[in-house]
Amino acid sequence: MGEEKFFGYRGKALEAIKRVGAEVGDLIRITKNGEVYEGILIPRSEYGDEKHIVIKLKSGYNIGIRLSPNTKIERIGVGAKPTFASPPLPPQNPQLPKVAIISTGGTIASRVDYRTGAVRPALSASDLYSVVPELADIARIDAQILFSLYSENITPAHWTEMAKTVAEKIADGVDGVVIAHGTDTMGYSAAALSFALQNLPVPVIFVGSQRSADRPSSDAATNLTGAVLAAAKAPFAEVAVAMHETISDTAIVLHRGTKVRKCHTSRRDAFKSVNAQPLAKIVENRVVMLAEDYKRRDPSQKLVVKPNFSDKVALIKFYPGMDPAIIDWHVDKGYKAIVLEGTGLGHVSNRFFQPIRRAVEKGVVAMASQCIWGRVNMNVYDTGRDLMALGVIPLEDMLAETATVKLMWIFGQTDNPEEAKQLLKTNIAGEFSQRTLHEETWEEAKQ
Amino acid sequence: MGEEKFFGYRGKALEAIKRVGAEVGDLIRITKNGEVYEGILIPRSEYGDEKHIVIKLKSGYNIGIRLSPNTKIERIGVGAKPTFASPPLPPQNPQLPKVAIISTGGTIASRVDYRTGAVRPALSASDLYSVVPELADIARIDAQILFSLYSENITPAHWTEMAKTVAEKIADGVDGVVIAHGTDTMGYSAAALSFALQNLPVPVIFVGSQRSADRPSSDAATNLTGAVLAAAKAPFAEVAVAMHETISDTAIVLHRGTKVRKCHTSRRDAFKSVNAQPLAKIVENRVVMLAEDYKRRDPSQKLVVKPNFSDKVALIKFYPGMDPAIIDWHVDKGYKAIVLEGTGLGHVSNRFFQPIRRAVEKGVVAMASQCIWGRVNMNVYDTGRDLMALGVIPLEDMLAETATVKLMWIFGQTDNPEEAKQLLKTNIAGEFSQRTLHEETWEEAKQ
Repeated sequence: MGEEKFFGYRGKALEAIKRVGAEVGDLIRITKNGEVYEGILIPRSEYGDEKHIVIKLKSGYNIGIRLSPNTKIERIGVGAKPTFASPPLPPQNPQLPKVAIISTGGTIASRVDYRTGAVRPALSASDLYSVVPELADIARIDAQILFSLYSENITPAHWTEMAKTVAEKIADGVDGVVIAHGTDTMGYSAAALSFALQNLPVPVIFVGSQRSADRPSSDAATNLTGAVLAAAKAPFAEVAVAMHETISDTAIVLHRGTKVRKCHTSRRDAFKSVNAQPLAKIVENRVVMLAEDYKRRDPSQKLVVKPNFSDKVALIKFYPGMDPAIIDWHVDKGYKAIVLEGTGLGHVSNRFFQPIRRAVEKGVVAMASQCIWGRVNMNVYDTGRDLMALGVIPLEDMLAETATVKLMWIFGQTDNPEEAKQLLKTNIAGEFSQRTLHEETWEEAKQ
Repeated sequence: MGEEKFFGYRGKALEAIKRVGAEVGDLIRITKNGEVYEGILIPRSEYGDEKHIVIKLKSGYNIGIRLSPNTKIERIGVGAKPTFASPPLPPQNPQLPKVAIISTGGTIASRVDYRTGAVRPALSASDLYSVVPELADIARIDAQILFSLYSENITPAHWTEMAKTVAEKIADGVDGVVIAHGTDTMGYSAAALSFALQNLPVPVIFVGSQRSADRPSSDAATNLTGAVLAAAKAPFAEVAVAMHETISDTAIVLHRGTKVRKCHTSRRDAFKSVNAQPLAKIVENRVVMLAEDYKRRDPSQKLVVKPNFSDKVALIKFYPGMDPAIIDWHVDKGYKAIVLEGTGLGHVSNRFFQPIRRAVEKGVVAMASQCIWGRVNMNVYDTGRDLMALGVIPLEDMLAETATVKLMWIFGQTDNPEEAKQLLKTNIAGEFSQRTLHEETWEEAKQ
């Protein structure tokens, strides 16, 4: 970490800035390979490398310039320092529902100082009201920073903390909970809390953003508003993900936590419900249910928290030529369950049969499909039947990611493989969709 | 293998059939748990397990019944035995283009005896003409059985054989080649041949089917007809995959071999071009180009065959809580390259940085996204910049599967990591799409 006025600059980058007497907020000029860049020196995040200096150009875009021996830095103006004093809380309407926002990090959780472009990975209720004033008309907000993490660094241990924190908020009597989360692994976390929080009385809504709040095209405010609205008023009491339905700003869609997947690296509508309808949609500030079957909001329900996860569960994606010894490696390391992301209807090479036999003796092996869409059906071809005869459990239409999280959760509850298998086959949080007639026809047609 | 009249039955299943004096083609009745099934005993494939007996019901559907102590089998009628004598070849029109069909196995390559439901994983030209008579109007066909494999059992060594066999056919002067292939790993094989067959004079078209030819809804005949038409007449000379465009039978679409992925377990339109337009489409028996940029058919081109693949390349899909030691395991086993299927724009947990540093010292580490759609961009967040500083190569919009195959191919050509990195970054067979203006806007917006 750099000193406070250097906000996250370290190593060579910090030295270079200090050498010219610049601080975050100052106007600087960088000359490199004949190109000249002028802009305001903005802070790095806590994970910033030591080689880039980041400035906000006049166009509003940020650029990271890598230091090299021929990089020249000049301080050409003294900037106003970024201040993060929170504005005073607006008056709160006691008639409004209470919503807790738990921030875990990611683009959505950043507050941007528009003058300097400085980003603080933090949220307070007053920050939120000042950035998204509409929130004051929807709910009374209680905001808490739980983590400030890029979501690729979130682990099952963090899911445990998230589940416990949500439980505390619900015990405090909130009408709904919003979890601000990086989009990279938000689908995994949403699945994790879907299993860990059972018998929910109120909705728990994950929200992220694909563009940071200092971009003209940011989806942060619209997604957050949608998430708070759903937490405050939705008729369901499940874990869901609130994101853009399309690339335009017209609608926020709510995906069930166990059926959602990030399917695009950069689009605002990156999240898709897979093998399921989305749970609901926000249209003109109203939550419209799309799923027919859902758990209803019911404040009298007593939340059951089962927050433990095992770290001895693996997701293994199959590819041609893959070495079957990878299965043995996991078994030897004491893994309790393996989710295979197989091909087509749920297949792997017959060279895997022997190691799979051994893995089944020691724990659970389950099969999802790398096709992503559609249902695994291991009755159609001999490979599937052989794998089932070895004890591999078909995961129906469950996402491989959700299945991995579910098995981590299952082995957080029990060490008994038979009990684990029963739990795996039980529809706990909508992770299995009912077969549709259309699907039946397809599958019969293949038998 | 069972004896000839027991077509693939082995072990307990073979004993049970013999006990009642039944053979393939006989009408049998099976009683199990109070249910009665009557139908014609049909053959198993060579990978059939020893526990199921498969009969074709009157409805036309096949059912596999697992033997248990309370299963009763009766032979209630003597069937006509399946005969696989090929019908005589129809007269061939010497004006028509010549197309070679190379069969590697899979549902598409099966010929079904409609009387008995027996499936033979084999094709001859006369079989094909008898099953799909339209072919005689499109091309003169030379058919060869190269393998009879479920495609989950295809390995890089099989890609080498396929490439060499295609080269032989082209040397024989055919106007195009069709490769019949199981759909499970057809995308991987199509990518492999896209790299192995350079400077193609004529098209090479992979084709599969999602429903076997004995089903009313089979796509085998329409896909095969489309593939032969494209091989015979398409204006492009690239490796492509021919499958249904939608779930209806109206159009066959041709996907570029490096940009295609199986995205549904059972639908007939399971294959999708990812981050690219499909190459072409067949409309009213004409090949209509959809891609603007493609290699043109040119019989004067001299094919360059580079058929070798390394088996020391891994595809590793990241998930929360994954043990970074998996990277070390591959490095210790002498792997030359690792494709990481990271999250979002191309990230993995910072706990992976140390093992990745070591892997980069020993070979190549490259990053694709498990989002599947969109482009990896490792300039946006610190995690991406840190990974690039460690030497991880961003794979732009290339599919993780294609990248894995490409690196297997690259290390079949060279052992020099620097040369390998250059080849990896070079657009050899359309595996990188050009950035679109729309994409640029998105990415700038995130910087």
